[in-house]
Amino acid sequence: MRALVWDGEALRLEERAAPRADGRARVRVLLAGVCSTDLQLLRGYMGFRGVPGHEVVGVVEEGPPGLVGRRVVAEINFACGACPACGAGLGRHCPTRQVMGILGADGAFAEQVLVPPANLHVVPDAVSDEEAVFAEPLAAAFEVLEQVHVRPGTRAAVLGDGKLGLLVALVLHAAGARVTCVGRHARKLEHLRRAGVEVAEADLAAAAAPAERVDLVVEATGSAAGLERAVQLVRPRGTLVLKSTVADAHRLSLAPLVIDEVTLVGSRCGPFAPALAALARRGVAVAPLVDAVYPLAEGSEAVAHAGRPGTLKVLLRP
Amino acid sequence: MRALVWDGEALRLEERAAPRADGRARVRVLLAGVCSTDLQLLRGYMGFRGVPGHEVVGVVEEGPPGLVGRRVVAEINFACGACPACGAGLGRHCPTRQVMGILGADGAFAEQVLVPPANLHVVPDAVSDEEAVFAEPLAAAFEVLEQVHVRPGTRAAVLGDGKLGLLVALVLHAAGARVTCVGRHARKLEHLRRAGVEVAEADLAAAAAPAERVDLVVEATGSAAGLERAVQLVRPRGTLVLKSTVADAHRLSLAPLVIDEVTLVGSRCGPFAPALAALARRGVAVAPLVDAVYPLAEGSEAVAHAGRPGTLKVLLRP
Repeated sequence: MRALVWDGEALRLEERAAPRADGRARVRVLLAGVCSTDLQLLRGYMGFRGVPGHEVVGVVEEGPPGLVGRRVVAEINFACGACPACGAGLGRHCPTRQVMGILGADGAFAEQVLVPPANLHVVPDAVSDEEAVFAEPLAAAFEVLEQVHVRPGTRAAVLGDGKLGLLVALVLHAAGARVTCVGRHARKLEHLRRAGVEVAEADLAAAAAPAERVDLVVEATGSAAGLERAVQLVRPRGTLVLKSTVADAHRLSLAPLVIDEVTLVGSRCGPFAPALAALARRGVAVAPLVDAVYPLAEGSEAVAHAGRPGTLKVLLRP
Repeated sequence: MRALVWDGEALRLEERAAPRADGRARVRVLLAGVCSTDLQLLRGYMGFRGVPGHEVVGVVEEGPPGLVGRRVVAEINFACGACPACGAGLGRHCPTRQVMGILGADGAFAEQVLVPPANLHVVPDAVSDEEAVFAEPLAAAFEVLEQVHVRPGTRAAVLGDGKLGLLVALVLHAAGARVTCVGRHARKLEHLRRAGVEVAEADLAAAAAPAERVDLVVEATGSAAGLERAVQLVRPRGTLVLKSTVADAHRLSLAPLVIDEVTLVGSRCGPFAPALAALARRGVAVAPLVDAVYPLAEGSEAVAHAGRPGTLKVLLRP
């Protein structure tokens, strides 16, 4: 099979033997999404070597009979299933987990990828491939609803108009929150505006006085300025969700969080079932976020395109 | 009346006119506690000028008839009662609040102190003056139970064996948590050991490997090393309570909080009712924490004593 392999220096298309399932399901990749985390990996994050790609929709070629031939998406944390964390239902936090295309397991920038059958979710027929490939980042957006009680009318601000910021804003909006997304890219924010979400084009680094402090702030910029701004925007006893995994060390006083008794919630991967259900009922419009689809042979171009400011989702079609 | 007045340079005993109640209740002070926040105020924190003291038990001299002659303790946040925060029941977060002995209102290092009647709580007869004066810091410890669901058997670590750390450890222990308090002062930790709380004498700055990661970590050291250690000690999806208001800016990566989806909860003042109820039912032994009682005229000596490492509670008796 053909695969894009990162060797620490370049992303090269290689011809490899088809991977042996060995207890895992072998999935033929239909589409794979390029995520900001992939761009970070190709800059050295996690010291990753191998096949990147953790956003995927495909068809099971080999695996449990009930799954063979089905169209699936894949949860990315491969848990051991035997440790106390897994026993407590926290497989996504299993300390010895592999993470598809990120940590110790090859990913989906390839014609085939191996996934533990327990990680697969069958895609409803009503959901297109181009929508289904958003299941992973959309699940990460839905994680906010798992962790925070978002009520109808909850006043929320989403900082950052990257792909995850947009998805979080759409999910919160669909949940009935009064959402404002603050970003720097008119074109990206236009997607939200069309979906009925309030947007504000602003430079977070600019020291504008906060307007009204809100119940919930989701920090999805990954920048120190974003976090400082988030602390200013959240109301006393409010909630601040941190969505950026690759944040550098911040120089930051946490005293305002104590004085205002703010709850800060770290948030990473989320549940696939609500994400797929939302796609099936047309609750969150993701298809307009696709900017380009590249063949596997043009992987480097695809990554370069995904890295250009203002770009939304870039997909690979093996 | 006599009062200890901080003028920015020294804490001086002054003779002042008795304060005019003017809608507030006038409380004759029986005992006032010296808190670490007072020591910070006298080092310049909040730019405070006036009479410090926010831990008090006294007798109402003038005020609503139902309260006159009653022994009371006082909540320290004087809310406006009219703003949206107050309307939402968040008077402790009223943006124009005064804080007794800390911000815009004279405190209890005096023979008399003025307090809004709504802030007063009658002390049950079973509670001594020496116990009642702990109501404010004990309420701050109980705030953790208001904010976090502590289950029987919850594994908790309290970092710091200052007064607040000890009270938090005692409250969590009484709530059924399995508590370990980590501190540097054998004498302070001995109080906890006698109450049945597990203790560990350790230097937090020492880079010892964390033993078992726990469900709940309460950071009560106020140091950067304490916060870093807290992040290491909390389990994935666990809760980290921040109790230190005067923390300096930390240089800190918050990425571990995101990856492990930790919830960080800022925690400040708490509810008096559960604190008084716990004192009445002998649920938390605070009397052994009193190290010394000074007359008002020896205010500077009292403050110096309170500031010596290893000291527990120092009281003033006007």
